[in-house]
Parts: sequence; C-alpha cells; structure tokens
Amino acid sequence: MKLKVASKILDANERIAQDNKKAFEGAGLYVVNLMSSPGAGKTSLLENTIKGLAGKSMVGVIEGDITGTDDAVRIERLEVPVVQINTGGACHLDANMINSVLNDLPLAELDLLFIENVGNLVCPAEFKVGEDIKVMILSITEGHDKPLKYPLMFQESSALIINKIDLKPFLDVDVAKIRKDALSLNPSIKIFEVSCKTGEGIDAWIEWLIQTSNS
Amino acid sequence: MKLKVASKILDANERIAQDNKKAFEGAGLYVVNLMSSPGAGKTSLLENTIKGLAGKSMVGVIEGDITGTDDAVRIERLEVPVVQINTGGACHLDANMINSVLNDLPLAELDLLFIENVGNLVCPAEFKVGEDIKVMILSITEGHDKPLKYPLMFQESSALIINKIDLKPFLDVDVAKIRKDALSLNPSIKIFEVSCKTGEGIDAWIEWLIQTSNS
Repeated sequence: MKLKVASKILDANERIAQDNKKAFEGAGLYVVNLMSSPGAGKTSLLENTIKGLAGKSMVGVIEGDITGTDDAVRIERLEVPVVQINTGGACHLDANMINSVLNDLPLAELDLLFIENVGNLVCPAEFKVGEDIKVMILSITEGHDKPLKYPLMFQESSALIINKIDLKPFLDVDVAKIRKDALSLNPSIKIFEVSCKTGEGIDAWIEWLIQTSNS
Repeated sequence: MKLKVASKILDANERIAQDNKKAFEGAGLYVVNLMSSPGAGKTSLLENTIKGLAGKSMVGVIEGDITGTDDAVRIERLEVPVVQINTGGACHLDANMINSVLNDLPLAELDLLFIENVGNLVCPAEFKVGEDIKVMILSITEGHDKPLKYPLMFQESSALIINKIDLKPFLDVDVAKIRKDALSLNPSIKIFEVSCKTGEGIDAWIEWLIQTSNS
C-alpha cells in the first residue's frame, strides 16, 4: 500500500519560504512580514520604526505593491536599503517573489528586514514568505467589525498594531471590541495602539520588536 | 491550419457572468457590483442608499463576506431582501457564487440589486459577476496614493464614491489628487464625495444612480 499525504510542507510556496528562512537565518537576520488593508499605515509605521531604530539596528525593507515605486521612494529617503517588488496584479507577495530579490539586499549587514506586503486584509495571510513573524496593522477608521470578518490575518499575526488612534474622537469605533475579538481569535497576539501621525504608542511597539527579535 | 483564440469570453467565470446577466435582464433588474477596501463604508453606503430609494425603487442585496453575517443583519433591518454569501476564505465574489443564490431572491419584484463584494481593493475588480456597473468606494482615510497603486478597480468602475469626507479636517489627504489620478486612469469615472455619517453628498449619488439605471 502506498500512502500519499498531501502535506503542506511539500507545497511549492512553503518549500521556497523555508529556503528564504534559511537564507535569512544564515545572515543573522530577523524578518517581519507586515500586512494590512490598503491605506492602514504600513509605510508610515515603517518610517516611524526605522527612525526609532536608528543607531540600534541595521534595517532593510522589501516593498510589495501591485505597481509603482511610491513606498520605496519614501523608505529610501531614510537611507536604508530598499527593494521594490511589483506583483503586476497579484494581490499578495509569495515566497518566490521574495526569493528573487534576496541578492538585491546586503543581508549580512542587516539586523532586521521588513517585508511590506500588498495592501490586502485577506490573501497575504495565506502565503508565508520566510518571515520570523507576521505583524498586522488595522486602522481604527476601518471599524471594529474587522477581526470577526477577516479572522485569518488576526490568527496568523504575532502583533496587531491599531493605527490612527488620533482619529478616535471623530469616529464611532469601539477599540475595546477590536481588542476583545482579536484576542478571542488569537489569545497570544500582542496589541499596540499607535498614531503614526502624533507618534503616540510607537516607542512601546519598537521596544517589543527589539525584545522579540533578540529573544 | 487551426487557430485557437483563448478568448476571454470562453473563460468559465465570464460565461457564468453572462448567464447571470441574462437572468438579471430577464427580470428587468439593474445590478451594481459594489467594491472597496475593508472598512471603506460599503454597507454604510448601502444603508443610506436603501433609505434614499425607499418608495422609488425595490432594492435587493447580496452580501459577500469571508465569514459571518454582520452585514446581512444590518441590511435586513431595512426590510429589503438580502442573501449572505460566505466565500470561506476567497477574497472576492465570482460569477458562480452569485449564480448559486439567484433563486434565493425575488428577482422579478426588484428594480435594483446591489452586490456587496468582499472588502479588497484588488481581486474583486478582476471577476465579473453579471453586473451592469461596478461602483467603488474609497475612504479618504486610505490616503491619496490609492488610485495609482491599485489602478484596476478605478479603471473598471463607473463611479468612485469618496467616503468619510467628514474626516477631511483631521487628515493630511489631498482629495484633488485622488480625483486627478482616478480621472487619469478612467476619464469617464463619475466621482462623488460623501459622508455616510453626516449624509453629505448622498443625494447626488442616489440621483445619478436612478438616472443611470433608467437610461
């Protein structure tokens, strides 16, 4: 009798993601896959995080977008190495896309690599790219119903960054419900409330990130 | 010589979308495929639109979500027929999903059918479902870089509804740039600035919708 188990580990994306992870580990690099809806503030969080890590960690960035180089241009101003991937229509980054740019970054010189995924609250959570952790951003303007409507990303993420908290006085949004529902989906998810505009909460996120990447 | 043209019309989704369209036309029904990022305000716009159309048009709704029935419950309160589709992970509605619920709505009694797609600024624009027009919503909180970063949905939509305009004083967002870039991608797109919270701009959208659906 022959038994064939269609194990996830044999899946092509999973295999390439493991190759990427080995390359990152070989370079002593901690990798964060950053995901959110369009316009939730991934690039703004990266800008704040890179500034906060200046002098502490060598940071590199891979930018994923359907088209264009807007985000890479923003990151380049902070004088860190950045590579832009254009997915050409695909709504998420996959492991092969990341594999194809590994030689375009000075991996051995870096401590932290951020992979900014395509803006999409669904598919990016399904595709590993070789990261150590997934981190997601939710803008409070998206409403408090998002965890239960888009559960996978909340389940897959190690941290949830609730952004644009400065807009809270002008919205009918129940941040406590976001916290409660996210924790019901993923009891170990670490939650930060931040404003990339005012800087509120950014320090706590960076402190956690440094601890997590060193542990 | 045999020539095989891999025409889009033979694509399975396209064929089923055409079947749906025939069923809708046979019932004298005008169909709007409503698309946006998560939390941009699709359901809130529908609530406002259904209230505005009361006594003028018989409205039905198909709700598309990965999981859950939150949106269908909101629509049901307005006493219009509604069917909830759960895509079970798929990041968009396709023609076959719509086809499978055609018998669950009183099509012949309706004038207007809204299909609220899954919250996603990418994939829904690629899949026809049998609609007459696509309409997209962009929340101004998503930022003014969205048209050039997610061009397909702007190109495919007949109308762009810029929502949450009441938050403009609290954001660094250039609405004129959104308009300019959307029009550069799609010169015939009709643009409305609305607030589903204050009601601003809703009347102009409803008036256009009535005219468009009757022409």
